[in-house]
Amino acid sequence: MARVVVEVMLKSEILDPQGQAIAGALPRLGFSGIADVRQGKRFELEVADDVDDEQLARIAESLLCNTVIEDWKVVRA
Amino acid sequence: MARVVVEVMLKSEILDPQGQAIAGALPRLGFSGIADVRQGKRFELEVADDVDDEQLARIAESLLCNTVIEDWKVVRA
Repeated sequence: MARVVVEVMLKSEILDPQGQAIAGALPRLGFSGIADVRQGKRFELEVADDVDDEQLARIAESLLCNTVIEDWKVVRA
Repeated sequence: MARVVVEVMLKSEILDPQGQAIAGALPRLGFSGIADVRQGKRFELEVADDVDDEQLARIAESLLCNTVIEDWKVVRA
């Protein structure tokens, strides 16, 4: 078994209102110096050793991510 | 400016129904070998160079994470 992380973020050209809300709240809470926030998802998968990157890519694109608006990245831990 | 990632995951003892739904859907979609899935959040922050880890910890605990049910980790990219 291996631990694999799939990171999913909105494409940079897509507006991220959740991230903007956080960035707007930070100064009100007294935190300065944060120029931008973008929110995304991460998935931790416990995968069998014979699951290859090509299969992980198909899982990410078919189930974990909306490829129209999101980018994904597989990170083997 | 530095890029910082805050990773937020449900604590391991907290049930993750979103992750379970994904894990249950994978075999139906023809993917085998995935034993477990847990879903979390990630935040990409553009921070000024004088923002230290202590301030990032306070941001994570006060705004990005529910510390009752979630763990967080700051990763400087």
